[in-house]
Amino acid sequence: MLRPPIITLTTDFGAAGHYVGTMKGVILGIAPQARVVDISHEIRPFQIAEGAYVIAQACRFFPPKTIHVVVVDPGVGSARRPILAEIDGQYFVAPDNGVLSMVLEQPLATRAAPKQRSDRAATRGSGQPAPAIIRHITAERYFLQPVSHTFHGRDVFSPVAGHMAGGVPPGRFGKRIADYARLDFFHPTRTGKRFWTGLVLHIDRFGNLITNFHAGEFPDLPTRPFELNIGLRKLTRLVSSFTAAQPGEIVTIIGSSGYIEVVANQASAAKLLGCETGSPAELVLY
Amino acid sequence: MLRPPIITLTTDFGAAGHYVGTMKGVILGIAPQARVVDISHEIRPFQIAEGAYVIAQACRFFPPKTIHVVVVDPGVGSARRPILAEIDGQYFVAPDNGVLSMVLEQPLATRAAPKQRSDRAATRGSGQPAPAIIRHITAERYFLQPVSHTFHGRDVFSPVAGHMAGGVPPGRFGKRIADYARLDFFHPTRTGKRFWTGLVLHIDRFGNLITNFHAGEFPDLPTRPFELNIGLRKLTRLVSSFTAAQPGEIVTIIGSSGYIEVVANQASAAKLLGCETGSPAELVLY
Amino acid sequence: MLRPPIITLTTDFGAAGHYVGTMKGVILGIAPQARVVDISHEIRPFQIAEGAYVIAQACRFFPPKTIHVVVVDPGVGSARRPILAEIDGQYFVAPDNGVLSMVLEQPLATRAAPKQRSDRAATRGSGQPAPAIIRHITAERYFLQPVSHTFHGRDVFSPVAGHMAGGVPPGRFGKRIADYARLDFFHPTRTGKRFWTGLVLHIDRFGNLITNFHAGEFPDLPTRPFELNIGLRKLTRLVSSFTAAQPGEIVTIIGSSGYIEVVANQASAAKLLGCETGSPAELVLY
Repeated sequence: MLRPPIITLTTDFGAAGHYVGTMKGVILGIAPQARVVDISHEIRPFQIAEGAYVIAQACRFFPPKTIHVVVVDPGVGSARRPILAEIDGQYFVAPDNGVLSMVLEQPLATRAAPKQRSDRAATRGSGQPAPAIIRHITAERYFLQPVSHTFHGRDVFSPVAGHMAGGVPPGRFGKRIADYARLDFFHPTRTGKRFWTGLVLHIDRFGNLITNFHAGEFPDLPTRPFELNIGLRKLTRLVSSFTAAQPGEIVTIIGSSGYIEVVANQASAAKLLGCETGSPAELVLY
Repeated sequence: MLRPPIITLTTDFGAAGHYVGTMKGVILGIAPQARVVDISHEIRPFQIAEGAYVIAQACRFFPPKTIHVVVVDPGVGSARRPILAEIDGQYFVAPDNGVLSMVLEQPLATRAAPKQRSDRAATRGSGQPAPAIIRHITAERYFLQPVSHTFHGRDVFSPVAGHMAGGVPPGRFGKRIADYARLDFFHPTRTGKRFWTGLVLHIDRFGNLITNFHAGEFPDLPTRPFELNIGLRKLTRLVSSFTAAQPGEIVTIIGSSGYIEVVANQASAAKLLGCETGSPAELVLY
Repeated sequence: MLRPPIITLTTDFGAAGHYVGTMKGVILGIAPQARVVDISHEIRPFQIAEGAYVIAQACRFFPPKTIHVVVVDPGVGSARRPILAEIDGQYFVAPDNGVLSMVLEQPLATRAAPKQRSDRAATRGSGQPAPAIIRHITAERYFLQPVSHTFHGRDVFSPVAGHMAGGVPPGRFGKRIADYARLDFFHPTRTGKRFWTGLVLHIDRFGNLITNFHAGEFPDLPTRPFELNIGLRKLTRLVSSFTAAQPGEIVTIIGSSGYIEVVANQASAAKLLGCETGSPAELVLY
């Protein structure tokens, strides 16, 4: 049986209006056989970093050749370019604003935590980037005409994804570029021999705080004394499951995406600590 | 390859309960080959006008023969009729409460703004309606029995859509009617030679205010001095993209649905102006 | 035409992060032909009873052989078992924490209210349970490796559902068990000859309060004087549709799931009464 092409959608459009439904209509009009899969439409408005985190986490679990449409696009209608990226065997259609930055460093963020890896934090920037081909989408014949200045999700990104699913080869959409946007918000900064400054990448629905300290960069963590300073609290305990925490206790855990998370057992660590996405965190290794 | 039939869902049921999942189960039980596509389930409860706007915007981008199920239905269980509408080659299953009013005037609201059209606002009501066949659904053999008094989304609208997708011809569901409900909330009122009174049709997730002034009805707007009075502010600037506004500046733009929108660059115009859906707006053309 | 296998998802993961999208990626990677259908991801965090209600209502309308993945899982990473249940011809993949309790008593909760049934409330516990085969999922070869301690939705439940959809027979996943968790929150307690104490099972988006008084257990209700005491109000009127209530009036109705609901016409009974999920209710039959 032939695999139908998969197109995923990740946007900050919310569930309340017609934007997402409209994109699905455009895609299915062009590629009726495509499977359209919602990843999330609840990226907070204009939060490129949050979109970057969500797509990087989800995309790794999709099969090869999946086409991911990522529209967190505060610069819509300006000179920012639409891009088509081929990364590790999957495709990404997005604005060139850094929203693919974490996907592009996939090897740093790959699945599973406790595997030993080289201490990448110490050699930040030297991480092998994922094999990537980035193209500037310029082939306007694949756009919906006339192209609006405010809804490229409908007029540019969805039809390009639809035509990709229909078999148009990537090279038809535009030329390769090397100067695409990269953001670096997701790496902690080393501030001393034993000190790293990081931040809260994401807060999930349970109030778990996902920090940007990746277990792969701190392989000794489970066996070494440490302090994680966050929201006026000093945390020193790393547990292996939520239920290992006492009721009301705030602990750290190596989360399902490999990042160190700050969690409470059946309670919101975010509320208990008063933290938000972007809140600072400091790691001290002894 | 055969196009599988597409059934879209637009409701005010919200994402939190079982209502939407139940409808999908009913549809897939009857039409296993159908593609079920969510447009939105976050229409505010009982807000027929908002449902009318959302389905009218999204439906235009779906392929011919798509079946749209629209359930915003404050009169469920009363004498209001279920209808099956064939409009411009697409199908709509809905309560007869006006929720299809904007779809029925599709030509007024068609895609893209800057094309010249006759000044329809001046001849309000004379707009050519979309070619439509409306039927009163009476064929109870296609309903889920016994039909509840409170959930026709499950017992009437979904099974009818499923049977349509399975090939039952429209005429089988009931007789044509001409006295179906039409609402007229979405046309501005001319109140003077240069004055029109309108309102906010919809507020999107970014806080952009979509007014009911359609660019097609005011073709001179981009080249003529105007005032848009809304929320104690007088706006006189029309920009072509969000990024043309200064930070904090509130401007007007011809939006992706062709209506004039009131927007701010990466900020919520709705919050800045204290406006809600239904808030009044006045347009003055000089 | 072959029916593609259907996999439904019911979780408390919310729409904002990557968890749901990740599960879909895992499923489609294993079973590309599967139809993935969202029931709800807005179960309130850790609320097993709410998840139990939602899946029990929705599942009855899906075709035979549907695979339902239900992840409301406060005990993830602890010793609680993953289970695969075959109930009335459908499959359920879930943690063994009682979230399937209402599905397991399906006959008590089957569709439609006004049919006469034996007075089950009087013989509580004697209800014939649905025919069920429950297995403890132990076949780790079907899990994503390494299995995280915090996201079994991704590592255990989704891949098992995917392999089921791909044709792996249920017996391969583990042995039958009889000591699985059952919760009994959804039956009212008889507290006197004419008195029953119950609670609010669920509040829908319209503010309708779904109580746990099932019309099938109180078949005389439509023809007999009664009192429903809830939120400081005494209700004595049972209507047959929302529109039969006066504006502002709070009444009872036999809802679409067969339970007695407390509703107001185009207003939120929950707000008017100050009730929440779990709020108590007392029924007196005269």
